[in-house]
Amino acid sequence: MLSKQLRNLAIKSSGNSFFMGLRSSQMMTNQQAKDLKIEQRQPKLQKPNTQNGDPYAFGRVFTDHMIQIDYNAENGWDAPKIVPYGSFPMAITASSLHYGISAYEGITVVKNKDTNAPQAFRVRDNLNSFKLSNEHLDLPTFDTEELLKCIQGLVKVDQDWFPNIKDLNSQLYVRLNHVSTDPTLGVKSPRFTKLYAILNPNTFKKKSLKIKCSQDASKSWPLGHGQYRLSGNLGPLLPQLVDARNNGFDDVLWLLDDYVHEMTVLNVFAYMKNRFGDYELITPANDGCIFNGTIRQSILEMADEIQKEKKVKVVERSLSIHEIINAYKEERLIEFFGGATSSNIQSISRLQFRDQTIDLSGRPTPLADHLNNKLLSIMTGPSDHKWVTPLL
Amino acid sequence: MLSKQLRNLAIKSSGNSFFMGLRSSQMMTNQQAKDLKIEQRQPKLQKPNTQNGDPYAFGRVFTDHMIQIDYNAENGWDAPKIVPYGSFPMAITASSLHYGISAYEGITVVKNKDTNAPQAFRVRDNLNSFKLSNEHLDLPTFDTEELLKCIQGLVKVDQDWFPNIKDLNSQLYVRLNHVSTDPTLGVKSPRFTKLYAILNPNTFKKKSLKIKCSQDASKSWPLGHGQYRLSGNLGPLLPQLVDARNNGFDDVLWLLDDYVHEMTVLNVFAYMKNRFGDYELITPANDGCIFNGTIRQSILEMADEIQKEKKVKVVERSLSIHEIINAYKEERLIEFFGGATSSNIQSISRLQFRDQTIDLSGRPTPLADHLNNKLLSIMTGPSDHKWVTPLL
Repeated sequence: MLSKQLRNLAIKSSGNSFFMGLRSSQMMTNQQAKDLKIEQRQPKLQKPNTQNGDPYAFGRVFTDHMIQIDYNAENGWDAPKIVPYGSFPMAITASSLHYGISAYEGITVVKNKDTNAPQAFRVRDNLNSFKLSNEHLDLPTFDTEELLKCIQGLVKVDQDWFPNIKDLNSQLYVRLNHVSTDPTLGVKSPRFTKLYAILNPNTFKKKSLKIKCSQDASKSWPLGHGQYRLSGNLGPLLPQLVDARNNGFDDVLWLLDDYVHEMTVLNVFAYMKNRFGDYELITPANDGCIFNGTIRQSILEMADEIQKEKKVKVVERSLSIHEIINAYKEERLIEFFGGATSSNIQSISRLQFRDQTIDLSGRPTPLADHLNNKLLSIMTGPSDHKWVTPLL
Repeated sequence: MLSKQLRNLAIKSSGNSFFMGLRSSQMMTNQQAKDLKIEQRQPKLQKPNTQNGDPYAFGRVFTDHMIQIDYNAENGWDAPKIVPYGSFPMAITASSLHYGISAYEGITVVKNKDTNAPQAFRVRDNLNSFKLSNEHLDLPTFDTEELLKCIQGLVKVDQDWFPNIKDLNSQLYVRLNHVSTDPTLGVKSPRFTKLYAILNPNTFKKKSLKIKCSQDASKSWPLGHGQYRLSGNLGPLLPQLVDARNNGFDDVLWLLDDYVHEMTVLNVFAYMKNRFGDYELITPANDGCIFNGTIRQSILEMADEIQKEKKVKVVERSLSIHEIINAYKEERLIEFFGGATSSNIQSISRLQFRDQTIDLSGRPTPLADHLNNKLLSIMTGPSDHKWVTPLL
């Protein structure tokens, strides 16, 4: 696209070429993470008090620093900076605020269980997914390996922020966001943007979720944007989410034409005995309506192992809510669970579809537990596993 | 919804009750716009130079001041303020940036052609529509009449900003935006928000648009959010928009299953002779997939007049792109045009659907011209018209 070519030209002529245009990447040196500047916070932030329980709920606490990288079409990317965590001056007309031109991504960073060194789970998959979401909003592109180096720098600076709470695995969840700061109204490719990364220390809590199926509303559509992590995909779900929460549910299971898509940020999995007597773990097909999260990808890629260990066939296909309900009624539904980077595997104890309820509360969840442990063990295990990237 | 009740309680107990909860509005006095504080900009901004043409393109120039009103769930709404136009400090975690929790609206303010006094076109319809969009994101609600008084205050302060360019009608386009400033991650009802209004002086330019039909992408869906002005509805359209613009088009005509929805911000109208020999002005039905803009509403409400003046029946119904193409081939398509608050009526001279082109360039556009003049004449005419609200 012309706009990208222009950008790349701008970047080429700029002094700083840390991030680069897709088309001109071969013309660039790949060693610009060396430009990373660190401005240390003094004094450091106070960490939450853990005496009265676990204050590390998802999304509430952030570490001392963040990564900030600004872009403008004229000069390309500024040098990446690690700066004290805080707010920034935002144009009231910024097109992220008026037209939802912002894309985010989440990355799990945990501690290696033997060495205590921070390591990331499938970070390159997350970074590639982030890049695709960026391209969908015509946000300027970047080199994912260089961005990874910046994230390594941030984790290094703030590694003492891992929550240390007995019996709970903890993470430094990396939230990446790339927002348009372009201060003119009109739906167009942004000429000014800001890419940033923050660290949210939290603990993996296993929760038994109660969920309600969406009614007269859908999360995404066959010609829509559900496969991307765009900010605008989630806010408009609030009417259904608020209604579900006000009625004692934790989340919504999003359907279209009674086919199951996903929960708000978790992919879903139904473990059942089918009518031929075979054991299947079914996850909805990746038809552009669902986000192909790293937990989902991992379970699909571990299909052979799961078959061997648990005699369960992992299947990716269309899944109707009525198939799940019938399996439940016929006592063939064994487990139903969700999975996402930020929370790992979460069992579902209750599922409401109109006036029908699937109640699995109190039941054992052997497959969910098995997969949860298996994934956690890879995340926190030897750093030579292909899904693990040491960060120090 | 519980969250709204809690908010309303919070607002009731707060010192400032300028804006109020929907459910408690009857318990509130309606005279709180008196709290409006004005901080004058000194010195004033420099206005653009009009010597070399018209610098007042849409969305680029803004006036000296803006309205800012902050909300927090604890204390409700702060007193509304008119402050110098500028940026504001934004939490890097604000849920408008991560989850698209922001809703906007546009209002046309023009000068009365006899008295030169500023007046707004269908401002109450715009404010009600803004309120609906806010509710869809569970943003805190407000009294539209009180907000109108603030807008009047802003226009009064900056009324010398109407562009004065020969032969061009000008407006102070009011852009309202309400964004979540809630600094915690997670998709939930915002506890901190900022509502603001800015004035964009621009001129109504008549342009002959070239548009391309969307392909393998849609703008909205039957169970989606197309009837609201949510920020997240527009950014994800960029891939198709950029592609269209790079190929010489001005905009995209969004289809679903080959049915016409709307352009990116304009509703559309096809003027044709149908197969029974009757003259019809057809606009796609309001089935939740389109935004029912005020120009669209006005044309529908003027149906009887249009029938009388032009012998054209105004029809709201499903409209397939193939019906338009066939009408063109059979020489029954007379005009095709778009309409929106920000730009009034805009003729379409070329429409591309896959490998088929409708070329109307060079043709007269009598109905578009008639409606454009009719609407402009109401906008700038006597302020006792039901669609006109004097602002001073």
